[in-house]
Amino acid sequence: MASLRLPLLAAVLAFMAGEALAAGSAAAGQTFLWLAIILLLARLSALVERVGIPAVLGELLMGVVLGNLGLAGIGFFEHVADDPTIAVFAELGVVILLFQIGLETTIAELARVGLRALAVAIIGVVVPFVLGTFVVGPWLLPGLSFNAYLFLGATLCATSVGITGRVFRDAGQLDSAEARVVLGAAVIDDVLGLVVLAVVTGFVQSGTVSPGEVGQIVLEAFAFLAGAIVIGRAAAPYLVRLLRGVSDSVATKLTLLLSVGLGLAWLAHAIGLAPIIGAFAAGVLLEPIFLREFEAPEIVRELEPLVRRLPPAEAEKAGHALERYRERHHEHLLEPLGHFLVPVFFVFTGMQVNLAAMADPVILAVAAGVTVAAIAGKLVAGLAAGSADRWAVGWGMVPRGEVGLIFASVGKQLGVVDDALFSVIVCMVILTTLVTPPILDRLIARRAAAGGGG
Amino acid sequence: MASLRLPLLAAVLAFMAGEALAAGSAAAGQTFLWLAIILLLARLSALVERVGIPAVLGELLMGVVLGNLGLAGIGFFEHVADDPTIAVFAELGVVILLFQIGLETTIAELARVGLRALAVAIIGVVVPFVLGTFVVGPWLLPGLSFNAYLFLGATLCATSVGITGRVFRDAGQLDSAEARVVLGAAVIDDVLGLVVLAVVTGFVQSGTVSPGEVGQIVLEAFAFLAGAIVIGRAAAPYLVRLLRGVSDSVATKLTLLLSVGLGLAWLAHAIGLAPIIGAFAAGVLLEPIFLREFEAPEIVRELEPLVRRLPPAEAEKAGHALERYRERHHEHLLEPLGHFLVPVFFVFTGMQVNLAAMADPVILAVAAGVTVAAIAGKLVAGLAAGSADRWAVGWGMVPRGEVGLIFASVGKQLGVVDDALFSVIVCMVILTTLVTPPILDRLIARRAAAGGGG
Repeated sequence: MASLRLPLLAAVLAFMAGEALAAGSAAAGQTFLWLAIILLLARLSALVERVGIPAVLGELLMGVVLGNLGLAGIGFFEHVADDPTIAVFAELGVVILLFQIGLETTIAELARVGLRALAVAIIGVVVPFVLGTFVVGPWLLPGLSFNAYLFLGATLCATSVGITGRVFRDAGQLDSAEARVVLGAAVIDDVLGLVVLAVVTGFVQSGTVSPGEVGQIVLEAFAFLAGAIVIGRAAAPYLVRLLRGVSDSVATKLTLLLSVGLGLAWLAHAIGLAPIIGAFAAGVLLEPIFLREFEAPEIVRELEPLVRRLPPAEAEKAGHALERYRERHHEHLLEPLGHFLVPVFFVFTGMQVNLAAMADPVILAVAAGVTVAAIAGKLVAGLAAGSADRWAVGWGMVPRGEVGLIFASVGKQLGVVDDALFSVIVCMVILTTLVTPPILDRLIARRAAAGGGG
Repeated sequence: MASLRLPLLAAVLAFMAGEALAAGSAAAGQTFLWLAIILLLARLSALVERVGIPAVLGELLMGVVLGNLGLAGIGFFEHVADDPTIAVFAELGVVILLFQIGLETTIAELARVGLRALAVAIIGVVVPFVLGTFVVGPWLLPGLSFNAYLFLGATLCATSVGITGRVFRDAGQLDSAEARVVLGAAVIDDVLGLVVLAVVTGFVQSGTVSPGEVGQIVLEAFAFLAGAIVIGRAAAPYLVRLLRGVSDSVATKLTLLLSVGLGLAWLAHAIGLAPIIGAFAAGVLLEPIFLREFEAPEIVRELEPLVRRLPPAEAEKAGHALERYRERHHEHLLEPLGHFLVPVFFVFTGMQVNLAAMADPVILAVAAGVTVAAIAGKLVAGLAAGSADRWAVGWGMVPRGEVGLIFASVGKQLGVVDDALFSVIVCMVILTTLVTPPILDRLIARRAAAGGGG
C-alpha cells in the first residue's frame, strides 16, 4: 500500500505545485495564504514557552524573522509587511485584544484595589515617563526631536496586564497581596498609559506643547472614556432589549459584543484617539449582567438539571463549574476571534522591525541603557506597595509586553518613531519581558515560603 | 437622578458627535464602523424568521436595502459595496461557511447515502443545468452570451444544504428516509455543483468550449478535490503531530483548523478554482479523529469525573452530552468566526443587487419564468427517490440559498453576469428559498402522519 501511495502522492503534488506556481496571485486568495502561514508559524513560535519565554515574545520574534528574510535573499514576506489588508486584520487583532482585556476589567475592581494600587500606578507612570523623556532619551539618543523622546517616555509607562497576571497565575499566587496590588496597579496603569498615549499623540499631531492643548487633550481623553462608559452604560440596556427582541441566541450575544467593541473603536478613532482606547472602554462598560439576558450555552442547559441529582458536595462543585462557564461564556465566544487575529497583530508588529538597523552595536548599547531605566522606573513604583513585598510588586510592573509595542507602532505610524528608535523600543520590550518571569517567580516563591501576608 | 442624567448625556453626546463629524475617515477605523453596522443590521434582519423566512434571506434583503439607499439620496453605503477590504472580509466569510459545511460532511456519509441519493443529485444537476443553459436562458433572455446562459444553468444546479437540513430539523424529521435522501443528494449536489462552477468558470476564462479543455477542467477539479483529500489525509497526522508538539491547547486546535482551511482555499484559488472549493475540501478531510488529539474543553474535564457519580440513567445522559460537546468542540470554535464573518458575505452580496435594474417588469417576469424552471428541474430529480416520498425529496432540493448566490457572485466578478441577470438570479434564489419551507413542511407532516417508512 505504502509503495503505491507515495509515487501517487508525489505525482499529484508535483502537478499541483506546478499549477500553483504557474498561476498568478490575486487579493483575497493571497490574503488567505498569508493568514494561514502567519497563524501556523505564530503557533509554532509558542515553543519558546518551553524555556519560560512568554508566547507573545515568540510571535514577535517570528515576525522579526519573517520580516527580515530579505537579508537572506527571500523577499516573499516583504509584501506582507506592506499589505494594507493584512494591516487591517492586524489592527482588528489588537482591537479584539484590548476589548478582551476591558471585558476582564470591571469598574468595581478598579475601585476596590484602593489607594496603594493607585499610588504604585501613578509613580509607575510618572517616573518612567520623566526618565524616558527628559533623562535617558536626550542622554542616550541625542539629536532626536522632542516628540521622539515623548514617545520613548510614553512607551516606558506601559505595563502589560497579560504578562503580569500570567506569571502570578502560573505560580498559583493570583490571590496574594502582591498579585492584587500589581494587577490593580497594572489596570490603572493601562488607563493612565492610554491617556498618556492620547496626550502624546495629540502633542505630536498639533505640533506644539501648550498647556491649553494638554488640558484639552486630557479632557478629551477623559471625556471620551467617561462619556463612552456613561452613555454606554445608559444605552446598553436599550441595545440589549433591541437585540433580545430579535433572539436570545449566541449569534445575537456575539453581535452585541462585536458591534459595541467595533463601534466604540471607530468612535475613539473618529475623535482622534486610538481605536484600542474605544475597544477597552467598550469592554469595561459591558458588564456581565447585560450578557446574562441571553440564553445559557446548550451544554449548561443540558447539564444543569442533571447535576442537581449529585451528592451535595459534588452538586455544588458541578453547579459552580457550570455557573462559571455561563458567566464567562462571552469570553469563550471572543477567544476564537482572539486566537485568530491577535497573533496576526504581533507577527505583523515584529515584521516592522528592521534588523539591519538593530545590528548596530550603538543601538544595542542604547537599548540596554533604556532597559535599565525602564526597570528602575518601575522598581521605584514598588516602594508604594505598603505591606506587600516591594520587590515583587516592582518587578511585577516591569514587563512592557503588547502595550509597549502598541505605543511604539502608533509612534511609527505617526512618523515620530524611526527605525532605530523602534528597534531600541522593541529590544527594551523584549528584555523587560524576558528578564521578569524568572526573577518574579523567585520573589513570589520566597514570599510564599515566608508565609505571605500583607 | 434622571433629571440630572439626561442633560449630561445630551451634552457629552453632542460633544462627541461634533468631534466625530469634524474628524476625517481613515482605513481601519472606518472598516470597524462598517463591520459594526453590518453585523448589527444583519442581526436585526433575523426578525424575518418570525414569519418563517430563513435568516439568510433577511441578511440578503438587508444588504439589498443598504446597497440601494442611494435611490433615497443616502450615499453612505455605496462606498461599502466598493470597498476592497470589506470584500476580503466577505470572501473570508463565505470561505468559513463552506469550511463549516465541509466539516459537517464526512466521506463516510457521502458513501453511505448510496445510489438513490446519487441519482437524485445527478438528475437534480443535469436537468436544471440543461433547462437553464439551453431552454430558459436563450428563450427568456435572448441576446446574451453563451457564457451568461452557462452561468444561469450553473446557478440552477445548486442546492442549499443549510436550508434543506434546517427545514427537516425544525420539523424534527432529520431521521426520515426523505431527509436522508435529500441531505445525501444535497451533499453530492454541492460537490457536483462546485465541479460545474469550476468547469463553467474555466470555459469563461479560456473563452472557448473545446472537449479537451472540458476534460482538463473536470480532471483538474477532480484532481484537486481528490488530491487535496488524499494528500490532506496523508499529511494531516504529521501536521497534527507537529502542532501537538507545541501544545494541545484550544489555540493550537483552532490554528490547525484555520491554517488547513485557509491554506486549501488559497491552493484552490492558485490552481484556478474558487477558494470555497478548497475550504470545502479542507472541511471534509479534517476528520474528528485528528481533532481528538487536542485536550478536551475545560468544562468537559471539570464535569466528566463528577457526573460519573450520578444515578446510571442520568450519568449516561450527562456523559453523552459532554461527549457530544467534546466531539463538536471544533464546530463551537468556528461558530463565532462564522457569526462574525458570514453575515458580512450575505449583506455584501445583497448590496451588489441593483434595485433600479430589478424594478423593470420585464426582469420580474423573466425571474418568475426562471424560478418555474428552477423548481421543475428539482421536482424531476425527486422521481429518482425510490420508496421515499418523491414530492418531499423534490421540494427538499428546491432552495438554492447561499450556494446559488455564490455562483452568481463568481459570475459577476468574472464580468459574465450583468446587473440584470444577477437581479434575475437573486429573485430566483429568494423565490425558491421562500416558497419551499411552508410546502416542504406540509409534505413532511403528511408523510409523518401516514406512518413514514422507506
